[in-house]
Amino acid sequence: MALIGVGLMGGSLGLAVKRRRLAGEIVGYAPEPAALKRAVKRGAIDRPAKSAAEAVREADLVVLATPVGAFEPLVKECVSSLKPGVLLTDVGSVKGALIGRIEALLPSSVNYLSAHPLAGREQSGIDAASATLFDGCRCLITPGATSRSDALKRLTRFWEGVGARVSTLDPFAHDRYLALVSHLPHLVAYALVTCAMDASREAPGLLGFSAGGFRDFTRIAASSPEMWRDICLENRVEILNALARYQAALDRYRRLIDAADGASLEQAFLDARLVSNELRSS
Amino acid sequence: MALIGVGLMGGSLGLAVKRRRLAGEIVGYAPEPAALKRAVKRGAIDRPAKSAAEAVREADLVVLATPVGAFEPLVKECVSSLKPGVLLTDVGSVKGALIGRIEALLPSSVNYLSAHPLAGREQSGIDAASATLFDGCRCLITPGATSRSDALKRLTRFWEGVGARVSTLDPFAHDRYLALVSHLPHLVAYALVTCAMDASREAPGLLGFSAGGFRDFTRIAASSPEMWRDICLENRVEILNALARYQAALDRYRRLIDAADGASLEQAFLDARLVSNELRSS
Repeated sequence: MALIGVGLMGGSLGLAVKRRRLAGEIVGYAPEPAALKRAVKRGAIDRPAKSAAEAVREADLVVLATPVGAFEPLVKECVSSLKPGVLLTDVGSVKGALIGRIEALLPSSVNYLSAHPLAGREQSGIDAASATLFDGCRCLITPGATSRSDALKRLTRFWEGVGARVSTLDPFAHDRYLALVSHLPHLVAYALVTCAMDASREAPGLLGFSAGGFRDFTRIAASSPEMWRDICLENRVEILNALARYQAALDRYRRLIDAADGASLEQAFLDARLVSNELRSS
Repeated sequence: MALIGVGLMGGSLGLAVKRRRLAGEIVGYAPEPAALKRAVKRGAIDRPAKSAAEAVREADLVVLATPVGAFEPLVKECVSSLKPGVLLTDVGSVKGALIGRIEALLPSSVNYLSAHPLAGREQSGIDAASATLFDGCRCLITPGATSRSDALKRLTRFWEGVGARVSTLDPFAHDRYLALVSHLPHLVAYALVTCAMDASREAPGLLGFSAGGFRDFTRIAASSPEMWRDICLENRVEILNALARYQAALDRYRRLIDAADGASLEQAFLDARLVSNELRSS
């Protein structure tokens, strides 16, 4: 097995695979030598490679676990080193058109099938990796035009092996849904922290008054900048749609406050609480 | 001591005071008989009163712990029953002009001094109350025009007694700051849940794809609707200012995504992460 990228996701996957003995040797590659060294030390990979192409050479399973913007260049670099019959997969947060572009780079001897484990935590990087990150998490497999059913079986078994609950989803539906329930919340949190930062220039000490509410946002806004940059670029259209929808919802609240419409505000808060409580008890 | 309102804040205060024996008998009042009964059962109050006026009759300390919109009617109802020399306080999330309006209702024999413990949690109501809610929390005392220094000493001692770290703040500065770091984050979270709810009507199952990011918001959006309605009405102007500032920040992110400006997005995310990490380690 080859692991390209050994941050939170790649590192956790290596640790989970090693712990459950789901693969033989794990060869790892990451552009940052320090991260690769830490991955060996933490036992997330068995052996570091000098390049992505070297890492994939003997592998039956190759997992891309870098920010999504690196996927195409990596595939171009590795394609001639991939073994026939290899299962190439990734853990990226954006699917849709990207899957077709990757498929177009690959010969028919390579099985490509993309997946997205809905796991994450505030920290990023190999030091935040954990063998239990995927325990009970949902993993979405998003078959593309060329995906084969045996690859789907293999990848399902793999993710179930590390503890995930697998389901399949159309890659474009994936991007539309995740824009709303993952990418948008992160942007909303980043914008809130940016807004408070700007305001604190005029009012030093402002952030010292932050209690529960704001601190929950800072946890979200502590995610990996490179990863979120790539997500914004790659899922740009769906994120802009989700943002427009959100801006309209926020503006409805603004108008209710402006009109001092207490009854409508209370009803909106009640509806939101109901959904929140349902979701959190599910 | 009299406690008007026995929800999360009032109930927790009663429990904390009883545990640390900071007052004699606590007489409680709340408009909902069931909540009042639960408050007795949980030991947050010693005795329920049939009205707010009855509750305050013998008290040296009266704490208003209802949603802020009820403060003025309650003070009007109780004013003739307050003992001379009583310390009247509240735990409201909005100060500013409200303090002057309450002061105007009171005779000079009543010491009024408002406070805001920056404690909160996702649940509301007496069942969520905890004797340790205020342990280590920050409590802002916001003196008004008529506040006296002996009242400040008394109230400081009281809040330090239940474990809070006390500081004083101008009531109008309080409202400006809290609009940014507390009221705005709650609205932003409510709007996100509303937005996802609307979208899930077209895409059933959408909310099932929510992982970490979105779930953090649902925790915030599970707060008390009545409380947040009153906060929005009472701190309307500062919240509208904070919302305008936030909408501008969000729109800057929207424009960067629209322009596919990866470098500026990454820099903005890096800046937000830096502040988030600083805040969270402080």
